Amino acid sequence: MDNPTSLDELIRALRCLPGVGPKSAQRMAYHLLQRDHEGAKRLADGLNLALDRIRHCGKCNTFTEAEMCERCASVRRDPSMLCVVESPGDLLMLEQTQSYPGHYFVLMGRLSPLDGIGPREIHLDRLLKRATDGVVREVILATNFTVEGEATAHYVSELLVGHGLTVTRIARGLPVGGELEHVDSGTLAQALLERRPA
Amino acid sequence: MDNPTSLDELIRALRCLPGVGPKSAQRMAYHLLQRDHEGAKRLADGLNLALDRIRHCGKCNTFTEAEMCERCASVRRDPSMLCVVESPGDLLMLEQTQSYPGHYFVLMGRLSPLDGIGPREIHLDRLLKRATDGVVREVILATNFTVEGEATAHYVSELLVGHGLTVTRIARGLPVGGELEHVDSGTLAQALLERRPA
Repeated sequence: MDNPTSLDELIRALRCLPGVGPKSAQRMAYHLLQRDHEGAKRLADGLNLALDRIRHCGKCNTFTEAEMCERCASVRRDPSMLCVVESPGDLLMLEQTQSYPGHYFVLMGRLSPLDGIGPREIHLDRLLKRATDGVVREVILATNFTVEGEATAHYVSELLVGHGLTVTRIARGLPVGGELEHVDSGTLAQALLERRPA
Repeated sequence: MDNPTSLDELIRALRCLPGVGPKSAQRMAYHLLQRDHEGAKRLADGLNLALDRIRHCGKCNTFTEAEMCERCASVRRDPSMLCVVESPGDLLMLEQTQSYPGHYFVLMGRLSPLDGIGPREIHLDRLLKRATDGVVREVILATNFTVEGEATAHYVSELLVGHGLTVTRIARGLPVGGELEHVDSGTLAQALLERRPA
């Protein structure tokens, strides 16, 4: 005398979403079935459409509906710069700064041996090939400053050694508008360590 | 040069889930497309199946695949007791206590005028009819002890006045194993107010 079968199945299926546990999944299922049939239908259709259409760009590995994404196909971008990011979301954040003119490579993850994510899962073979195409001069590592992101950046920089490339890492330090009083000590120590001529 | 169209549509569709904002929706979409195609397919199918199969029990209003849910159809339950809850999840919680032998009525919500949820949306007309069927003797209000839940309980008890029913509210107080030192003062005040003969 639990939930009806199809409802239980939906609750189980919702748990494939990251950050959704049994309680949230149940709440989501109830919400959809009680208040938002239309949203549920749209979500089912959206999932099927995206599964059908979305593939990876042959060049930068981000999500696209074409063989190659618009960004890689653009002739306005500087082909000598290649920025390595973890996810398409990070790419969009960088694009929003409107201050990076080059190309990207999206790892679609980060090294995380405990989760079974090694060099192959984040396509480092393809990155190596892409970075050593003879046109790229600088590779900018823009993975996150988490343990996994740092490890990934380190691994990639080792990988690219000896190919005549400049490999850089985006800067750590205080945020713009940041006050010393309100920043964590790790960031402050790093900002001190990586000080530059004023 | 944003996300591809079908990906954007999926992200928008995911936002129909309660508690999912733009950032989470993006993260969910990336995760499904990158790491869990199978989960995404299962979710799409689960949504469609549940939309197709799930309806409301004609008697207690909970989710069911039949005309009437197993619980309402059971002859082992005490037909003189009717417990009013906000959601099927609350019903399952009460069932897990294995201490309630009666029937239920599921409001599928709570009074919340700001969200456009009035007496009609939580089926109070049907509850009135169900509670005054001549068999029910006691109505137990088991809505949450939130502002909306309390308002709903108050409204329902007013609605049932003059029909010869005993209307009760589940008790507030310290949790089992609770220590005075660690309970919030509102709960403690209420436990004091609602003290009973030892």
